[in-house]
Amino acid sequence: LSKACIIGGGSWGTALATVLATNNFKVCMWSRSQYVVDHITKNRCSPKLPGIRVPDNVGATTSPNEAVKDACIVVSTVPSTAVREVASVFACILPEDCIMISATKGFDPGTFSRPSEVWKEASASLKNRIAAISGPNFAVEIARKLPAATVVACPDLSIRETVQSAFITPYLRVYTHWDIIGVELGGALKNIIALACGMIEGTGLGYNAQAALISRGIAEISRLGVGLGADPLTFAGLSGLGDLVLTCTGHLSRNRQAGIAVGKGEDIETFMARTGYTVEGYTTVKSAMNISETVGVSMPITCVVYKILYQKLSVMRGLSEIMSREKRPEHEPNSGLVR
Amino acid sequence: LSKACIIGGGSWGTALATVLATNNFKVCMWSRSQYVVDHITKNRCSPKLPGIRVPDNVGATTSPNEAVKDACIVVSTVPSTAVREVASVFACILPEDCIMISATKGFDPGTFSRPSEVWKEASASLKNRIAAISGPNFAVEIARKLPAATVVACPDLSIRETVQSAFITPYLRVYTHWDIIGVELGGALKNIIALACGMIEGTGLGYNAQAALISRGIAEISRLGVGLGADPLTFAGLSGLGDLVLTCTGHLSRNRQAGIAVGKGEDIETFMARTGYTVEGYTTVKSAMNISETVGVSMPITCVVYKILYQKLSVMRGLSEIMSREKRPEHEPNSGLVR
Repeated sequence: LSKACIIGGGSWGTALATVLATNNFKVCMWSRSQYVVDHITKNRCSPKLPGIRVPDNVGATTSPNEAVKDACIVVSTVPSTAVREVASVFACILPEDCIMISATKGFDPGTFSRPSEVWKEASASLKNRIAAISGPNFAVEIARKLPAATVVACPDLSIRETVQSAFITPYLRVYTHWDIIGVELGGALKNIIALACGMIEGTGLGYNAQAALISRGIAEISRLGVGLGADPLTFAGLSGLGDLVLTCTGHLSRNRQAGIAVGKGEDIETFMARTGYTVEGYTTVKSAMNISETVGVSMPITCVVYKILYQKLSVMRGLSEIMSREKRPEHEPNSGLVR
Repeated sequence: LSKACIIGGGSWGTALATVLATNNFKVCMWSRSQYVVDHITKNRCSPKLPGIRVPDNVGATTSPNEAVKDACIVVSTVPSTAVREVASVFACILPEDCIMISATKGFDPGTFSRPSEVWKEASASLKNRIAAISGPNFAVEIARKLPAATVVACPDLSIRETVQSAFITPYLRVYTHWDIIGVELGGALKNIIALACGMIEGTGLGYNAQAALISRGIAEISRLGVGLGADPLTFAGLSGLGDLVLTCTGHLSRNRQAGIAVGKGEDIETFMARTGYTVEGYTTVKSAMNISETVGVSMPITCVVYKILYQKLSVMRGLSEIMSREKRPEHEPNSGLVR
């Protein structure tokens, strides 16, 4: 029986544990919280995914050493804000030849690095054995074994195919991709557009405007991606447009819900305090503004969302700013990217 | 005052008439129905868009000659099944130098030609003065002047820029595009995917599956498009993904509603008889099957939708057929298209 370690006891970690368990891995989940570990081991259920039974071949521990022992696959599912700290704990205890898979969506808030880059910096011994998994996946639906598709990205062909085999099940279709930069960026940047989409919903401006926003959103995500070395076509796939569509239209998305509240006049801080939700787009939009300035790429939607959230621009004024930009072509022949 | 003619008295024709009226065109709408014409001229309202006031500078007639007289812009908004017949009526009476704009989404059911091709065949004198307009646009929202974006496509730069200027308003952002093939195909093929998306909704399989379907749907639309000479990146834009997202997630979409009914066990024919709706995807899927075989492009979702609608394959079996295809990469480096 192969062993796998899941770092993080939240809903996504638990969902991925059930997937690996379906494929007969012996899974050990790590959480820093004794409460979460006890809940999983005693109640066979994660507190973040109530009603979903954790399979018998999934255990849990607060000990990093115990969690990674003999694991051939280690999956990090912690929030983007925790990756650097967690990576520094695990880097020196990872089993030799294990494959590290980052399932985190977002940027390291201090350096704006992608999660897989943070792991690479933390552990030189991992070398090319770092992959990312990202796609249009609500955790609760994966845990319920409803049909879904996702993407495993790594420049190394044999690594990504190994990870594909580990995660593919009759209900989860796993595609491989070489473009880890594009795959990680799609998952991080979609939350900004989901916030904007929620704002349109909250102000009652209709479906056309949301569809336009999603299209122009993927265009500006692609532009930034190309500036950072990604393939523009990656963003037309599951980890780009697929995840964007899910987050912008699925009613389970917290970023979209936050946008709706803001569109109705609530402060984002008030929303977060009231609901207790982590709204990832709120921090991501700051990182994206920084990155876009460094790379020299124009991101009008990101810029307006930033102004609305951090500089108290009104939603209606922000939207009319986007609508009143100069006339232009959607993109030009052979430019190689969507403008 | 410039004159414009709208061919077709339905909801989309009326919505585009209000846009041109906003830009001070004197608009004449043509409908074969005396009832529709009377409704518009007397009640200032189209029967297909109840509650929306038609502006004063919009008239209506059943006479083709009167409708196109002195028009510098002629917009065809008739259903795909009617284009050939209507084009044969109007071809020989179009004003010299007028620009013909096709706003029809679908294929000519007899020849599988795009609507703009049918117009081109019908009227040699039009030459390069044929454009297409397509995008994520529910008619009722455009008529209400809610914010939206759309695409005007024509290989000729000055033609598409003229049309852009005619339609751009503070609430409708118009982008230009050279790739008329891709822009028309996106609008036609989306309805097949919307049907499939509705089926998933109807069977209760969740958001992840719908997002995956939309991503893989745009991938197969792009494949067919490339086979027919379109640019793959066109499908990542407003007229591709944007319209697809709107049709697959907006609650006003008839194709999606039909899919939901089929997912719940109703026959598509029963659904159409019960609601009186034209479900464009029902005819488009037949055309797409034919085209894909001619071009030699694999379209797994289209193929399953065809089997479900015309060969009574069960929805659950159709879906598991898509999920159980062989393991594969999402796309390969430098292949130039999304697989």
